[in-house]
Amino acid sequence: MSGPLRSRFPSPAELRRMSRAEQKRVAVAVRQFILDSVSSTGGHLSSSLGAVELTVALHAVFNTPEDRLVWDVGHQAYPHKILTGRGPRFPTLRMKDGLSGFLKRDESVYDAFGAGHSSTSISAALGMAVAAKLEHQPRQVVAIIGDGAMTAGLAYEGLNNGGALDADLLVVLNDNEMSISPNVGAVSQYLTRILSGRLYNTVREGAGQALSLLPPLRELAKKAEEGVKGLVSPATLFEEMGFHYFGPIDGHDLDVLIPTLENLKDIKGPRLLHVVTKKGKGYGPAEADPCAYHGVSPFDQGSGQMAKKASGPPSYTQVFGDWLCDKAAREKNLVAITPAMREGSGLVRFEQMFPQRYFDVGIAEQHALTFAAGLACEGIHPVVAIYSTFLQRAYDQLIHDIAIQNLAVLLAVDRAGLVGADGATHQGSFDLAFARTIPNLLIMAPKDEQELRDMLNTGFAYPGPAMVRYPRGSGLGVGLDRDLARTVPIGKAEVLRRGRNLAILAFGSRVAAAMAAGEAVDATVVNMRFVKPLDEALLLDLAQSHGAFLTVEEGAIMGGAGSAVAECLLNGGRSMAMRILGLPDEFIEQGEAKEWLAELGLDAAGIEAAARALLDGLAPGAGAGVVSD
Amino acid sequence: MSGPLRSRFPSPAELRRMSRAEQKRVAVAVRQFILDSVSSTGGHLSSSLGAVELTVALHAVFNTPEDRLVWDVGHQAYPHKILTGRGPRFPTLRMKDGLSGFLKRDESVYDAFGAGHSSTSISAALGMAVAAKLEHQPRQVVAIIGDGAMTAGLAYEGLNNGGALDADLLVVLNDNEMSISPNVGAVSQYLTRILSGRLYNTVREGAGQALSLLPPLRELAKKAEEGVKGLVSPATLFEEMGFHYFGPIDGHDLDVLIPTLENLKDIKGPRLLHVVTKKGKGYGPAEADPCAYHGVSPFDQGSGQMAKKASGPPSYTQVFGDWLCDKAAREKNLVAITPAMREGSGLVRFEQMFPQRYFDVGIAEQHALTFAAGLACEGIHPVVAIYSTFLQRAYDQLIHDIAIQNLAVLLAVDRAGLVGADGATHQGSFDLAFARTIPNLLIMAPKDEQELRDMLNTGFAYPGPAMVRYPRGSGLGVGLDRDLARTVPIGKAEVLRRGRNLAILAFGSRVAAAMAAGEAVDATVVNMRFVKPLDEALLLDLAQSHGAFLTVEEGAIMGGAGSAVAECLLNGGRSMAMRILGLPDEFIEQGEAKEWLAELGLDAAGIEAAARALLDGLAPGAGAGVVSD
Repeated sequence: MSGPLRSRFPSPAELRRMSRAEQKRVAVAVRQFILDSVSSTGGHLSSSLGAVELTVALHAVFNTPEDRLVWDVGHQAYPHKILTGRGPRFPTLRMKDGLSGFLKRDESVYDAFGAGHSSTSISAALGMAVAAKLEHQPRQVVAIIGDGAMTAGLAYEGLNNGGALDADLLVVLNDNEMSISPNVGAVSQYLTRILSGRLYNTVREGAGQALSLLPPLRELAKKAEEGVKGLVSPATLFEEMGFHYFGPIDGHDLDVLIPTLENLKDIKGPRLLHVVTKKGKGYGPAEADPCAYHGVSPFDQGSGQMAKKASGPPSYTQVFGDWLCDKAAREKNLVAITPAMREGSGLVRFEQMFPQRYFDVGIAEQHALTFAAGLACEGIHPVVAIYSTFLQRAYDQLIHDIAIQNLAVLLAVDRAGLVGADGATHQGSFDLAFARTIPNLLIMAPKDEQELRDMLNTGFAYPGPAMVRYPRGSGLGVGLDRDLARTVPIGKAEVLRRGRNLAILAFGSRVAAAMAAGEAVDATVVNMRFVKPLDEALLLDLAQSHGAFLTVEEGAIMGGAGSAVAECLLNGGRSMAMRILGLPDEFIEQGEAKEWLAELGLDAAGIEAAARALLDGLAPGAGAGVVSD
Repeated sequence: MSGPLRSRFPSPAELRRMSRAEQKRVAVAVRQFILDSVSSTGGHLSSSLGAVELTVALHAVFNTPEDRLVWDVGHQAYPHKILTGRGPRFPTLRMKDGLSGFLKRDESVYDAFGAGHSSTSISAALGMAVAAKLEHQPRQVVAIIGDGAMTAGLAYEGLNNGGALDADLLVVLNDNEMSISPNVGAVSQYLTRILSGRLYNTVREGAGQALSLLPPLRELAKKAEEGVKGLVSPATLFEEMGFHYFGPIDGHDLDVLIPTLENLKDIKGPRLLHVVTKKGKGYGPAEADPCAYHGVSPFDQGSGQMAKKASGPPSYTQVFGDWLCDKAAREKNLVAITPAMREGSGLVRFEQMFPQRYFDVGIAEQHALTFAAGLACEGIHPVVAIYSTFLQRAYDQLIHDIAIQNLAVLLAVDRAGLVGADGATHQGSFDLAFARTIPNLLIMAPKDEQELRDMLNTGFAYPGPAMVRYPRGSGLGVGLDRDLARTVPIGKAEVLRRGRNLAILAFGSRVAAAMAAGEAVDATVVNMRFVKPLDEALLLDLAQSHGAFLTVEEGAIMGGAGSAVAECLLNGGRSMAMRILGLPDEFIEQGEAKEWLAELGLDAAGIEAAARALLDGLAPGAGAGVVSD
C-alpha cells in the first residue's frame, strides 16, 4: 500500500459544517483512501473514483440520512461508504462477513435502498418520495443513476411514472461518458450529443437564441454558481418525460456541484440533474482504461499492474467464448447477444471476429430475449450469453416470447451457482427452479468444460429453446476435444461409477465433488446432465437397485433439480430414502464460493458426510419400495 | 345477430390489387363482421374496431406474409385475422380448440410473432429486421404498438436498441387517445400534448416557423397525401431515441394511411409513424365508452346491452377489492398499486374512495414492484394487485428489490391458475414454482373467499413480503365475516376431514373439489393454505398415519406445491406413495377453466379417480416407511 490510510473521515453532519476548502480536502482524502484500499483488496475502482466529488457534494448538501440517497447498482458507492463510517471496514471489502461491495440497508442507515442489479434507483426513490408526501415529511429523495443504467426498461418505467406523478424527486444522472461497449443504445448516443453540443443545434435550429451557442462545459459550470435559473434547460428527452432538466455540469468541481444541488433542493417536482464525471478520475491508469479498472484484483498503485491470477485451467466463461467463435465459424446463422456483459460473458474475441453477428443490447435483459425470439423466427440462431441472476430480469420473455413459441434460442447461463464477492444480489441460485417449470425448455448443466462444449453443441442443434448453466470460475482442466459435432444424448444421464446401496445424483458443478464422495463411500455416482428432461428411466431403475438417493446441486433446494428428482420418484410411484443437497432457503451473502460450498456441505467432504449419514440411517435390508406403476 | 355475416373476405394479395374504393368497402365489411361476430361470441371489441382501416392499409401496402407485421398484445388483431382467412373460424373465437383471441404463429403464416402480453412487438420486429439484413432479404418489418403498451420498459429497450442499430424497421404507434385510466405516465401525457398541439408550441417556441402553428388533424392528414416529405416531423422523444418520426395522421382514413405507408416503405432506418385512431370506432356505444367495450361478453348490437352474467357468488377479484377498501379505511399506511389493471384487479371502488393512495403505474410491472419496495422502506404498506402471468414480468424485482430486503409488501396475485379464454399466454401456471424458490416470501392460497380475506389480513400483518394467490372467477358463495382481525396461523394447514389410508393435500382453488373426492373415498383432506412455509410438521405426522398422499393444485406440477411436498417428505427421511396432480408440463391453451380442469383430472371426479388408483396400488398393509430423522 503506497499511500497513508485515513480511517477517520468526517461524518456527513460534520461534512456539512465544513468550509468548501475543507470539503475539497475531504474529497482528496477519500480518493486516496479508495486507491490505497482497493489496490490492496480489489473491488470496483473506476466508478467509485469517478463519484468522489459527487458523493461529497450530496452529503454536504442533503441532510442524510434523513434525506434519502438512492444509489443505483452500487459500483460507485465506495465514497459514500467511506463518508458514512465504513472506512475502517474496507480491508474486509467483498469478503465473507465483510463489507459489502454494494448498498445494503442492513449495513448502514445511510443506505436508503439496497442494490446490486442496475436501474432500480428511480423507481425506489419515487416510492420514497411518494411516501414522504403521504406522510407529510419534508425530506428530500435523490436517485443517483449512471448513463449505462438508463438503458434498462425499469429506469424508463420509473421516469415515466415519476414524470406523471409530479413527485418531489431529484434524479442525478451520473454520465461518465463511457459505456462498456460503444453501441449500447440511442439514449447513450443522445447523451453524447448533448455533451458535444450537437443536440442543441438540432433542437434549437433557427431559434435565434443565445442558447444555441453552447458554452463550453467550464463556462456552463461557472454559470451554475450564479444560481439554478442560469442553467441551460433544453427541451430534451427528459423534459418530455416530465422531468425538469438541468445540466450538464462538471461532476468533479465542488464549487459547481454544491451550489447547484443547493438550488435544486428548493425546486419542487421531478428534476433531473445531468452531471458529467470521468470514470477512474484522479488515477492515471484508470482514467486511461476505465474498463480494465472497473472491477479490479489487487494492484500496484505505482505501476497500475494488477496481481496476476494464478495460471490454471480456463474459466467456463472462456471455454464458452472459445466455443462460440469455433461454432460461429461453422454456423453462418449463429449470432451472439449480450446485455452489456461483453467481458464478463467471454465475448471479446467473438465481437472482434464477427462484428456483424455480435449484439450488445445494453443493460436490457428483457429486450435481449425478445430480440432473440424475433431473430429465431427468421431462422437466425441466437446464443444469448447471460448471467443466471440477470436472467431473472427476462423471465417473462423467456416464457412468453421464447418457450411458448418453442423457438430455437440457446441461453448460455453463466455465473450459475455461487458467485463469490458480489453476494446475495448476484448469486445464481434460482435458475434451475424458475426455468424447469417452463415447458419446452431443455436445461443442461455440465460436469466439466468438455461437457460444456458438448452441451452447447447439443443445445445449438436442438430445434427449441435450450439452456446450459455453468458456474463462475475455472473448469477442471480436462483436455478439450473441440469437435463441434460432439453432443450429449438428450435426457440421458451418465453413470460415472457403480457402487452399493446409495446413488449420488449430481448436477453440473457438483459432479466432481460427488465423485470424490462416492469413491469414499462406494456409492453409485451419476452425472445427471439434464435437469429437464430428467432421465426418469434411469432414476426409476436406480431406485430398484439402491436403498437411498443423495442429490447434489449448486442451486436453491426449493424447487431445484433435487426437487425434480423427488417429484419424479414419488409421482412415479417409488418411495425412497433421499436427501437433497443444495443452497438453503435463504439469501447467500458474499464470500468465496469455496468457503460457502464447504460451509453448506456441498464440497466433497460435505457430500461424503451426508452420504454416510444417509447410509447410517438406512434400516438393514431396507431398499426401494415399489408402490405402483 | 343483426347484420349479415360475410365469411369470404379478400386475401391480402387480392386486397392489394383492389381499387381504393373497393378497399374502403372491405373496411366497412370487416367492421360489420367484427360487430356481428363479437356481439355473438364476446371478445376484444373496442381495440379491434379502432384498427380496421389501419389493418386494411397495412395489408394493402405491405407484401404480407413475406413482409412481417408484428402486432403488439393482439387485442386489436381481429381485422388482421379476418383479412387473413380466419373469418369462418370467428364463431369459435376464444373457445377451446377454437380461434385464438391473440396472435399465434401456429395459427397463420400471417402471424409473424405470437403475443398476448404487451410491449414485445418492437423488440421482436427489430430481431426480424436485423435477420432480414443478415440474410440480405429485402423484406419489410412493421411493429404495430398501442400508446398504452409504450409505458412498459420492454418497449423502451426495443426503441433504444432499434434507434442505435439503424435497422430498417417501421414502428406504427397506434395512439387511440385513451388509456384504461387517466394517469399512466409521462409518455402518455406527452402524446396527448403532441395531439393537442401544445408540444409544438413548447418545443418550437420562438422558432418562428410555420410548424409552430399546428394545423388541425384533418389538415395535417391532407398534407400526408402530398407525400411523406410534407409530414410534420418535430424533434420529439422518438427522434431523440433515434427514430425518424412521422405524424400524427388520421388512422381511419385510407386515403391518408395508404399513401403515407407507401412512402414510408421507401425510407430506410428506424421510423415511427404516429397514427391516431378511436377505440370502438364505428359503433356508437363503444365509442362512447371504449373501456366498457374493451373486452365484452355477448351483447345486443342494437342497444349495446351486454348479456348479464348469471348472478352468483362474488368473484375473488371483487372480494379482494372489497377487502382492500375495508382495510384501507382502518390502515392509514395502506396504498394500492396496479400495473394498468384497475378493472381487472377490482380496484375501481378503491380508487374512488382513496384516490391519494391509489397508484396505477401503467403497464410497468417491474416498476410496480420496485416502487412498492421504495414505499415499504418508508413504512408505507403497499398492496400490489397483479395477475399471476404478469408477475412474471417483475420476477427480478420481487427477488432483488423486495425479498432480499425482506420488505413488507403484499402481493395480491389474481388469475392464478387457469384463466379461460385468454389461453396459453395468460395462464397463471407458474407462480407457485417461481415464487416458492424465493427466500423470505410467504405464499398462501385460499380455499374460498372467506379465507381470501383472512389470508389478506395475514399477509398484511406479516412484517415481510407475502403473496396470496387466487383464481379467476367466482368464489364458493360462503357467507363473509368481514372482521379485519381474522387471520390464519402462519405455516399451519387445516385438516378438513379425517379419513383412512389416503391423505389428499389440496391447495387453494382445488380444496373444494378435493373435499368432494375425499368424501367419496373416505380420505383425509387437508387445506394446505401455505405453499411457503409448508406445514412440514403436519406432513410428517400424516405420513406416519397414512399409506399415500395425493396433492392437488391449480398450477404447474414441475416445481409447484406438490413438488414442495415431495421435497419435504423425501428430504425429511419419509418414503411415501404419492401422486401429484396439477397442470402438466405443457402450455395450456384457451378454454373454460371448467373444461380444462375436467380434462386434466383436476375436478372432483378426476381427483377421486386418482385417489382410487393410488389406493388400489397400495400393497396391503403398506404404510409409511420411516427411514431416518
